[in-house]
Amino acid sequence: MSRFSDMKIEYRPIGVVHSPFKKRDGMPIQPAGASGIRGTVEIFSEYKDGLRDLEGFSHIFLIYHLHKSAGYSLRVIPFLDTVERGVFATRAPRRPNPIGLSVVRLVGREDAILHVENLDILDGTPLLDIKPYVSAFDVHPTERAGWIEKASEEARKARGDSRFT
Amino acid sequence: MSRFSDMKIEYRPIGVVHSPFKKRDGMPIQPAGASGIRGTVEIFSEYKDGLRDLEGFSHIFLIYHLHKSAGYSLRVIPFLDTVERGVFATRAPRRPNPIGLSVVRLVGREDAILHVENLDILDGTPLLDIKPYVSAFDVHPTERAGWIEKASEEARKARGDSRFT
Repeated sequence: MSRFSDMKIEYRPIGVVHSPFKKRDGMPIQPAGASGIRGTVEIFSEYKDGLRDLEGFSHIFLIYHLHKSAGYSLRVIPFLDTVERGVFATRAPRRPNPIGLSVVRLVGREDAILHVENLDILDGTPLLDIKPYVSAFDVHPTERAGWIEKASEEARKARGDSRFT
Repeated sequence: MSRFSDMKIEYRPIGVVHSPFKKRDGMPIQPAGASGIRGTVEIFSEYKDGLRDLEGFSHIFLIYHLHKSAGYSLRVIPFLDTVERGVFATRAPRRPNPIGLSVVRLVGREDAILHVENLDILDGTPLLDIKPYVSAFDVHPTERAGWIEKASEEARKARGDSRFT
């Protein structure tokens, strides 16, 4: 599919994320670590009309540009692991297309400002899209969670052991 | 944040989706309608190394460019509804940045070809990113699903009534 290699896809931010995370250092490395973190999503006025009815949803997907991610690596050692993994098997930010995906709780909307919770996004991040999160469509029963499952199990085991030493 | 208005974000496809859906007509309008539909995702050779360890996951997110979507509307009447909604409160394709998001079941990997199931993506769609779907991170207990919940309830009620007429 060499006709695709030169294809360029151009997007423009529809808004910007305001969060307490001013630097990548100290940011939550798992969405669970963002539990309760509040912030706002500012939608630019020309896109405001697209927000209608969004407040009916308790959770929304935010799709954003990881603007501080320069270049990419196809192999990364994830924060949760000590072994090199393929970047597409991780949530690491240095991806060929640095697109971020988060589900946040939508606490409320004031005009073009969304008040959100469980925010794990860097302050100033350009927003690309918003979609409603719907359990009926977005909850999938998984059988395997690869290296992440293994890493969590090992973490649990390690904690379990240390309680008896 | 007017400094953002002129910002252009440029991505390149990392691969292409091969699916039985050659035209938008007749495509599943809900992910549930794609249950069992099989297809492949071809990753371009320069990104192949990023796939390592992906086969450990039973489900993956595909993030893609809705290449057949020309222009956008901020208000749309979703397939599931009869009322105009804000586009960001829907999954409609005519979005300011036409980015699609699907969770598919990863059946297997042969080198740079992913065999997937529950595919609701048009044949020839340029792929932007892959992320592992992990229940521990990606399942969120929702309280409200806005107009979608209402539409489903009404559909259920309508069916319920018709059984007694």
